[in-house]
Amino acid sequence: MMAFCPEIKVLDASIRDGGLCNNFRFTDDFVKSLYEANIAAGIDCMEFGYKSSKKMFNPDEFGKWKFCDEESIRAIVGDNPSPMKIAVMADAGRTDLDDILPKSESVIDLVRVACYIHQIPTALKMIDDAKAKGYQVSCNLMAVSQVRTEDLDAALQMMAKSAADIVYIVDSYGNYYPEQMAALACKYVDVIGAVGKEVGIHAHNNQQLAFANTIECCRWGVNYLDATVNGLGRGAGNCYSELLLGFLKNPKYDFLPLLEFVQHRILPLRAGGTLWGYDAPYMLTGLLNSHPRSAIRFLKEGRIDYARYFQELNDGE
Amino acid sequence: MMAFCPEIKVLDASIRDGGLCNNFRFTDDFVKSLYEANIAAGIDCMEFGYKSSKKMFNPDEFGKWKFCDEESIRAIVGDNPSPMKIAVMADAGRTDLDDILPKSESVIDLVRVACYIHQIPTALKMIDDAKAKGYQVSCNLMAVSQVRTEDLDAALQMMAKSAADIVYIVDSYGNYYPEQMAALACKYVDVIGAVGKEVGIHAHNNQQLAFANTIECCRWGVNYLDATVNGLGRGAGNCYSELLLGFLKNPKYDFLPLLEFVQHRILPLRAGGTLWGYDAPYMLTGLLNSHPRSAIRFLKEGRIDYARYFQELNDGE
Repeated sequence: MMAFCPEIKVLDASIRDGGLCNNFRFTDDFVKSLYEANIAAGIDCMEFGYKSSKKMFNPDEFGKWKFCDEESIRAIVGDNPSPMKIAVMADAGRTDLDDILPKSESVIDLVRVACYIHQIPTALKMIDDAKAKGYQVSCNLMAVSQVRTEDLDAALQMMAKSAADIVYIVDSYGNYYPEQMAALACKYVDVIGAVGKEVGIHAHNNQQLAFANTIECCRWGVNYLDATVNGLGRGAGNCYSELLLGFLKNPKYDFLPLLEFVQHRILPLRAGGTLWGYDAPYMLTGLLNSHPRSAIRFLKEGRIDYARYFQELNDGE
Repeated sequence: MMAFCPEIKVLDASIRDGGLCNNFRFTDDFVKSLYEANIAAGIDCMEFGYKSSKKMFNPDEFGKWKFCDEESIRAIVGDNPSPMKIAVMADAGRTDLDDILPKSESVIDLVRVACYIHQIPTALKMIDDAKAKGYQVSCNLMAVSQVRTEDLDAALQMMAKSAADIVYIVDSYGNYYPEQMAALACKYVDVIGAVGKEVGIHAHNNQQLAFANTIECCRWGVNYLDATVNGLGRGAGNCYSELLLGFLKNPKYDFLPLLEFVQHRILPLRAGGTLWGYDAPYMLTGLLNSHPRSAIRFLKEGRIDYARYFQELNDGE
């Protein structure tokens, strides 16, 4: 525990996952301040949001980080003279490939293609497209805790053969315990690492295990670690960046700029009513391996009748 | 992960550790309601507070659970007709042995003797006393993360030879990562388990690892698991009972009565200003392996300048 692993990279997903809490309505000032804090903290990559299709989603109904136009990102980072890379997420079935410019025209470095298990073929096509345009590409297979083992094994083989550089374990529902996460990490690293690709982890905090699961993955060769400042993210939120940098011993990391961001930006965001973080209803959806949407609704309605909510979850919605 | 370990026992420490947040000023109604919720949840043992010396602490300055007079406990539990056992904590150097009645006159089942490393001889004397009076006895060596390895090894040998039935790993400062906790659990179980005693774990949530560390310990033969409802406890608080019961597969456990207690009792307690749970300053004391007292003061003063506080911690107080 005194050494560090130089291969490990930390990706800040605060704006993208946090955008799910406030319809991506972060001010430029907020995003710029996080960009600067992340650079000061030594974060390796910062995700700015989704590349969502404007044919499918009305730009009037969302903040700009739902779409991540090139000029929106450049308004924050210019040509990004920093060593920190820039990522966006492209959802299978919700993205216009034409919106993804050739890398030579973009400040984006990494395109993260997110999909559910039935969308793997769509995702592979998107991965090929982004790779051909010159990007580093990841494949983020979501809700893996609901994927049947034989389907996951097949998907891992397909992702191993794909053009993706990184394949992510995504515990969308915050369902896994560390012991299970270790087994999953070994499975991914076995198949994906064998072909020279990297494995990543994106954890959720439904059972207060996002940080524990993330550092458990480190032990088994998972090198891309997603985190968000103060755990900002949908529902129970994510692995806290400040905890993760406190754990990683690489001297290039410094969590103090993130704590300053918490002080100056996160506390006002929370005070303004943006809601995230561990709470009892998220534990229940995590335990039941289900989407947090009903827990989010439960809390928005001001309900606190947890036991009754658990019965509703068991009855089906 | 589909089976369960019938040897595992869960001890609720909410009133004792939570009493450190409010000077033990819980109403009888609150304690009775928790007692009933714990029984309904299948909790194996409930700790009511400290047996503190009234010569050292003025009863006018604390609630009754600082002292746990026999009649205070009986006002809640009567003769305790339930299968749930009753525990109290006796701090080395802060307890009058005369306050601990013979077991035949008491509804208490388990006396938990807490000490720091330099108090081991005092603790052993207290253990002998409680054992001779007829109680089940545990030895809770606090702040083990600050104990030198050779001292811990010597202390474990002394505790192994003592009359204690259970020896607890106590991560008072929330300093350990699960990988370190696993090594510590193996060390305790090796020495303590070899002489037919049980090992327990009492974790703190400074780095959001109380639950993760507790279930990690389960894997290595630690059978007594401390938890508190909603993590109620000093500073960053403890392992959440509701998360722990959700993890343990023993059908005798049911977390729903605890969630109802959260709804009806914990939310009003929080709303009334009692403060506990993960927050940035507790992460910092956890990382630095130090007592949370300055973090508690920081938050009570309404401070949010985390980076400056970290400098203060590094400068010494």
